[in-house]
Amino acid sequence: MLAGGVGAARLLRGLYALVDPNALTVIVNTADDDEFYGLHVSPDVDTVLYSLAGLAPVKRGWGIAHDSFHCLSALEKYYGPAWFQLGDRDLATHLFRTDALRRGRTLTEVTHAQARALGVRCRVLPMSNERVRTFVRTREAGWLPFQRYLVHHSATETVVNIRFRGIRRARPTQAVVRALQNADWIFLPPSNPFVSLGPIFALPGIRALLAGKRRRVIAVSPIVAGEPVKGPLHKMLSGLGHEVSAYGAAKLLRPVAHFFALDRRDASEAPRIERLGMQPIVTEILLHSAERSRNLAATLLELTRP
Amino acid sequence: MLAGGVGAARLLRGLYALVDPNALTVIVNTADDDEFYGLHVSPDVDTVLYSLAGLAPVKRGWGIAHDSFHCLSALEKYYGPAWFQLGDRDLATHLFRTDALRRGRTLTEVTHAQARALGVRCRVLPMSNERVRTFVRTREAGWLPFQRYLVHHSATETVVNIRFRGIRRARPTQAVVRALQNADWIFLPPSNPFVSLGPIFALPGIRALLAGKRRRVIAVSPIVAGEPVKGPLHKMLSGLGHEVSAYGAAKLLRPVAHFFALDRRDASEAPRIERLGMQPIVTEILLHSAERSRNLAATLLELTRP
Repeated sequence: MLAGGVGAARLLRGLYALVDPNALTVIVNTADDDEFYGLHVSPDVDTVLYSLAGLAPVKRGWGIAHDSFHCLSALEKYYGPAWFQLGDRDLATHLFRTDALRRGRTLTEVTHAQARALGVRCRVLPMSNERVRTFVRTREAGWLPFQRYLVHHSATETVVNIRFRGIRRARPTQAVVRALQNADWIFLPPSNPFVSLGPIFALPGIRALLAGKRRRVIAVSPIVAGEPVKGPLHKMLSGLGHEVSAYGAAKLLRPVAHFFALDRRDASEAPRIERLGMQPIVTEILLHSAERSRNLAATLLELTRP
Repeated sequence: MLAGGVGAARLLRGLYALVDPNALTVIVNTADDDEFYGLHVSPDVDTVLYSLAGLAPVKRGWGIAHDSFHCLSALEKYYGPAWFQLGDRDLATHLFRTDALRRGRTLTEVTHAQARALGVRCRVLPMSNERVRTFVRTREAGWLPFQRYLVHHSATETVVNIRFRGIRRARPTQAVVRALQNADWIFLPPSNPFVSLGPIFALPGIRALLAGKRRRVIAVSPIVAGEPVKGPLHKMLSGLGHEVSAYGAAKLLRPVAHFFALDRRDASEAPRIERLGMQPIVTEILLHSAERSRNLAATLLELTRP
């Protein structure tokens, strides 16, 4: 499975509950990574790890459930008001990562150690060990680092352009390439196709690899009834000239995915999606409970049965 | 005033309460500094800052009062059991310091910024911007970094040798040299003369500077009734062949201090101290309350009146 943040984590929890964890590998976007207080924060990796470890909050899309924020309050004395929330327990993850990276470990090694420490039993692979960083250009505020746009600006502006800085020098890790080559099936979760899945697609060789296995790729619509499952995707679709609908999202994923799961509420779009050369699966997409996550995962796993 | 950790902080609080903070400069030992979880921790600087900011605990000799330890618990998942306690609020200090040092600021600049942020109104100067690190050789466990000896080993072993690694390359900062040159009076607190004041003395030029102003230097005994005011000094005095008494401490400080305040309980040692060519001041040395700190400070300040 490829993964961004929360949307991915919800589907992932369902899969994780149903399949042998040894048979599951998660390849996570790291282009949202940013530095706060000198610490390397990997929001999507953290969301995936915390979700699989059962530490993620039920509603809030980041950090650890019931965390406290005493360190952040004290940091504000030194740095001024914080716009990026880092809980006390969450900080340990960033401290360990930063410390290990400075000692010369790769992000892949660090993430592996963290997954083990947190009791996560499937493989969690950052997409690359190299630094890639997403910038979005908004109509109102120009170019912004993605976390600043998403969190500090609350994603209020319309996005008219997106750039992955460092993407030309970055390579997917060997582990990522091998996992995709060996995968029987590949799941694309209802994550933002531009900024969550987009950086993974943009790594050299990945798009071709996915296209080559297109009949084994199952995507889940990130749009339900014209609204994103999570985050500011609608502002990106419209700002970048796409239709804000399940169909609009399907069209973007057509080169890499054959199956496309969409919500019952969007069932009327299924024929158009079929005409794209994709196989629509009409089901429940909004994953507001563990049960729904498992149900969707079960539906998708049905497709993988011979 | 020169300063180590807790013993210094107690006298310092008394002085800080009585004198114009603009007239007070504290020069702090940094040879206890160590790295934990990739963070630069300066135990003595922190103790001085927290004490002056009113954040230090009343009894415990480190950290911030009423701090929580959620981050440390989470760090233990990644690193295993912790032997050095770092509170959530305290961590912010180390994060800021580490971040600023990595950005190329000096320890002097960082400490200045921290003192301001915490509302400390006197000058707090780390002894050097260069890295010096205290190692002690114990009879039982060989050479140990000082914090490991003090905290992890609870200072149970007898110290037979002390080394300040990096001391030959280190220089006192210009601000430190100027503060000592311009000082009307210099206070040596009841800190450990080997490992707290010792590294400051060992910086090139400092011993000569103090010796040149010896008649303006007022020391406070770190030993009362054969026991250290704080910490494992008795194990160092005996292990290194010195008398474990106020007199033994006075003898060590004789080259740099003319005045020597000792506790009433050690009044019988005053004549021997006088024969060292020092002027003994018999008073209360144990500073278990803010009032006692102020009383001792007031007694010492009497000596500075023309």
